[in-house]
Amino acid sequence: MRQAGRSLPEYRAIRGSGSILDAIKQPDLSTEITLQPVRRYGVDAAILYSDIVVPVHAVGFGVDIEPGVGPVADRPFTSQADLERLPPLDAATHTPYVLETVRSLVAELGDTPLIGFAGAPFTVASYLIEGGPSRTYHKTKAMMMGDPALWSLLMERLAGIAIASLTSQISAGASAVQLFDSWAGALSPAQYERFVLPWSTHIFTEIAALRVPTIHFGVNTGELLPLMKQAGPTVLGIDWRVPLDVARHRLGQDIVLQGNLDPAILGAPWPIVEAETLDVLRRNGGHPGHIFNLGHGVTPDVDPTVLEGVVATVHAYTCEADR
Amino acid sequence: MRQAGRSLPEYRAIRGSGSILDAIKQPDLSTEITLQPVRRYGVDAAILYSDIVVPVHAVGFGVDIEPGVGPVADRPFTSQADLERLPPLDAATHTPYVLETVRSLVAELGDTPLIGFAGAPFTVASYLIEGGPSRTYHKTKAMMMGDPALWSLLMERLAGIAIASLTSQISAGASAVQLFDSWAGALSPAQYERFVLPWSTHIFTEIAALRVPTIHFGVNTGELLPLMKQAGPTVLGIDWRVPLDVARHRLGQDIVLQGNLDPAILGAPWPIVEAETLDVLRRNGGHPGHIFNLGHGVTPDVDPTVLEGVVATVHAYTCEADR
Repeated sequence: MRQAGRSLPEYRAIRGSGSILDAIKQPDLSTEITLQPVRRYGVDAAILYSDIVVPVHAVGFGVDIEPGVGPVADRPFTSQADLERLPPLDAATHTPYVLETVRSLVAELGDTPLIGFAGAPFTVASYLIEGGPSRTYHKTKAMMMGDPALWSLLMERLAGIAIASLTSQISAGASAVQLFDSWAGALSPAQYERFVLPWSTHIFTEIAALRVPTIHFGVNTGELLPLMKQAGPTVLGIDWRVPLDVARHRLGQDIVLQGNLDPAILGAPWPIVEAETLDVLRRNGGHPGHIFNLGHGVTPDVDPTVLEGVVATVHAYTCEADR
Repeated sequence: MRQAGRSLPEYRAIRGSGSILDAIKQPDLSTEITLQPVRRYGVDAAILYSDIVVPVHAVGFGVDIEPGVGPVADRPFTSQADLERLPPLDAATHTPYVLETVRSLVAELGDTPLIGFAGAPFTVASYLIEGGPSRTYHKTKAMMMGDPALWSLLMERLAGIAIASLTSQISAGASAVQLFDSWAGALSPAQYERFVLPWSTHIFTEIAALRVPTIHFGVNTGELLPLMKQAGPTVLGIDWRVPLDVARHRLGQDIVLQGNLDPAILGAPWPIVEAETLDVLRRNGGHPGHIFNLGHGVTPDVDPTVLEGVVATVHAYTCEADR
């Protein structure tokens, strides 16, 4: 899951207090931050230290990340004229630092795969339209439903940017990519199907040609999972609200599932965390298509020794199962 | 749905800028605010102008409502000693203003029923433990899972307070009551079943003796709906994420469903709002056990004429269906 190293003391020691966008622009720093949780936890893959608004920031939309708040846009997206601030992404020109980080990570990581990522059009659009994080997505939904032509133009731009970003990360050596539609769970299935699914499908269709595994994830997506599967990812991330056995029943045998330990549980005493970790593994029922993960990101307050324990528990369980 | 009058100019004209808790303590003002949406929209029931933290505020826990933020507690609930700040609610002594508002409303409303309400233990506990609104409920879940004995003591107190509050509102003349577990959707089904369901069941069992309809509601509850039905309400509120026909299929014929127009849609042009309103009604498929409603609260930015149109559309549709 993204931000795996967020609670590490070694992360706080080197991260500094500036904008995360500044940290991302320093390949040495981003490489080191990406490697920290791999070193500490011995996880089976690394996930690039970056952010879903990096590409729209880089093409000049005018979006920043305010510490403690999240992505903010002083001039939100309101009309067709704002499309001018969303030109196509030329990754080599706009985000050379991301590609440099990917290349340096691939060199450092050896056999450990690197997962690159991008924000899905709906989730990125929500920040651009709302001007910041939202609990209700009222402006986003009003535009989506009230001006579907403008919505399509915006989705087309953002899908193109996501494709360019993912493609460039894969070309630079990423072994897999994840498409985060973190907030799509705010939509009804009908809204998702009409206004979001075509664009996610478009992205996965384009990326499929590059022959690396693709992962799709959002929270609160219980009702959307069958549609998100239809978009075409190799792997579907499941948050903790849907038990893994229920998700498997709902989605069938022919997809890899990722998840789904509730990250809030990491604050409980170790025996509880261990029991819940084993519960996720048992609910998977030995299906070979399971990537153990949290159901959402690690928060900064988590004790790293607890995460070490989770990784050790998963490795011991799967090693046992393999024998 | 609560806060139906929140976007009315006549509400803003009399509400003032002070804490909502001060407004709730003035029965004349709360009566008028409760009546405004009934007058303006001609809805079929009124919902008491109050807040879910009113009882815990009144018994002296030390919780306030900060405008633009929500409920905040300077000294959050962390240990058994904090139970002292949660004595039993004696509604006549602690919240006489609520009962006076209910009585004055019942006199004013005539045939229009008044819906009283209370916060469910989990949702109220989340404010007390986190000290304010949360996106992750980490502290709440850590206590729930890490110290189940303390959690039970807290739930017992809050269930008792909810029962006392609902009972007093019914005695004062409320025709129905709603139990808001607004944030229970943050839990996995296993967490909900073990740590929340027993207390919600306890409340509905106690209130059933008073022979008024009971309504249960939360957002993001798709996976929890069968368990929430099991708690024993007469009516189950469904947010917009679960289409009404899917909810009916999942829950069976023997429960009344309330909902479930996405309130975010209210910002779209009228033809869209009308089509979505009719879509909810059609998905109900003529089942007599349906209370049309929004899937969550009205936000302050909604144009009142749109809500007038929604009510008129629902009334015209159901009138047509009755002939």
